[in-house]
Amino acid sequence: MGKNEKPLILVTNDDGIFAPGIITLAEEMKAFGEVLVVAPDKPQSAMGHAITIHNFLRLREVDFMEGVKAYSCTGTPVDCVKLAVYHIIKGKPALLVSGINHGSNLSINVLYSGTMSAAVEGAMEGVPSIGFSLMDHSIEASFAHVRPVVRSVTANVIANGLAKGCCLNVNVPSEMEGPLKGIRVCRQALGNWEDAVETRKDPNGGEYHWLKGRFTAKDTGEDNDVWATANGYASVVPVQFDMTAHQEVDMIKTWNHAL
Amino acid sequence: MGKNEKPLILVTNDDGIFAPGIITLAEEMKAFGEVLVVAPDKPQSAMGHAITIHNFLRLREVDFMEGVKAYSCTGTPVDCVKLAVYHIIKGKPALLVSGINHGSNLSINVLYSGTMSAAVEGAMEGVPSIGFSLMDHSIEASFAHVRPVVRSVTANVIANGLAKGCCLNVNVPSEMEGPLKGIRVCRQALGNWEDAVETRKDPNGGEYHWLKGRFTAKDTGEDNDVWATANGYASVVPVQFDMTAHQEVDMIKTWNHAL
Repeated sequence: MGKNEKPLILVTNDDGIFAPGIITLAEEMKAFGEVLVVAPDKPQSAMGHAITIHNFLRLREVDFMEGVKAYSCTGTPVDCVKLAVYHIIKGKPALLVSGINHGSNLSINVLYSGTMSAAVEGAMEGVPSIGFSLMDHSIEASFAHVRPVVRSVTANVIANGLAKGCCLNVNVPSEMEGPLKGIRVCRQALGNWEDAVETRKDPNGGEYHWLKGRFTAKDTGEDNDVWATANGYASVVPVQFDMTAHQEVDMIKTWNHAL
Repeated sequence: MGKNEKPLILVTNDDGIFAPGIITLAEEMKAFGEVLVVAPDKPQSAMGHAITIHNFLRLREVDFMEGVKAYSCTGTPVDCVKLAVYHIIKGKPALLVSGINHGSNLSINVLYSGTMSAAVEGAMEGVPSIGFSLMDHSIEASFAHVRPVVRSVTANVIANGLAKGCCLNVNVPSEMEGPLKGIRVCRQALGNWEDAVETRKDPNGGEYHWLKGRFTAKDTGEDNDVWATANGYASVVPVQFDMTAHQEVDMIKTWNHAL
């Protein structure tokens, strides 16, 4: 990057390029650098770390916001990051931000979330990356109270950097929960999805199934993201893509592994 | 489970229900318990932890193997686990095995892999879960040398259990690499995918893009899965769904988080 160039900030999401959340995020990023948007052309929620390998991808330059170059992509959020790095930029952005997601990405939802998977892919590419989520699915939800959180976390990441292999998962309670008490840095809460299938009959009598379910926190601690957001704080969880359960390696070595 | 009942073993994969790998795996599981197969009706490689929320799912009972109940599913590997637990079994299997994948799932590929995401979903449901992969994409690849690894690891998991929140990622080198030296318990290697996009022109002059790339290990240690499999061992990595970078929490707390 030359001395007169502003840092390049890649913006993506999983709700699609025309969602209010990504517009808010791109607006905020203009204060920090040159903004490039590469985002799915349609909703890609719950796509996790999926990539497209059995089909090709298309990119289309779209009118998005004054002073911002933007492309819609036919693939997943992780596809968007790969196309941005290896085709559009042909290099690494200074920062990747994903979101602002319409809905929570607390706890284990980091694994299902396309928003967070894009941030994890950024971390894999060595790019400081942040995923932002507003805990409100309503399309009319206000993002006003999320903006200061975006500014604070982004400024911190630019000033302090992030450890190799690590990105951030930021969740902000709905404005309807009252004023934010502040930001809490915490760990991913324990929890899972229960009662996850609803079966119906089609007009011909055939069964079909909808995934639904109820996210159930199973964590009694106060140092996790579910507790923080339930108590009026925005949560910041450092997320890593090393999924090794390091604490189990030595124990499993003691098994009889003879073939 | 009644005293006379055999433990129920759920078998799934991401290559689809008619792939040779899942047939081998189901055959081996018959020695350990009652086998139920719920697997995608088509290849679902690289679907990561994706679930289907904008469409419904269908299940179809299929002829698979004598003495084995089997369903194909229109969704992803993680969808298969959810439908098995919350619709077919309406309870938890004693064990979940996924694979045998046609191709490697070493290093960070645990995040892209549908095979491993099914095992991770099993762990989220509190079910001891194992993903198996053969490092050979050829449809004619021999699974003969993988069978003893499947038997050894499965017997160990049944005898010793797995820690809460943890599943296993097992990779076995191709038979063409020579006889297996044994099993190594290790950690996920560092690495990433490089040079990941190839751009072509369609007959009308429009650009389209294929993801490709070259997985590049970036790890100098000998305690990881890339080293183990490159040196003639089957690798066993304990994998957890807690993605918190715990070692970073205290440092990030020291930032100025004022809003």
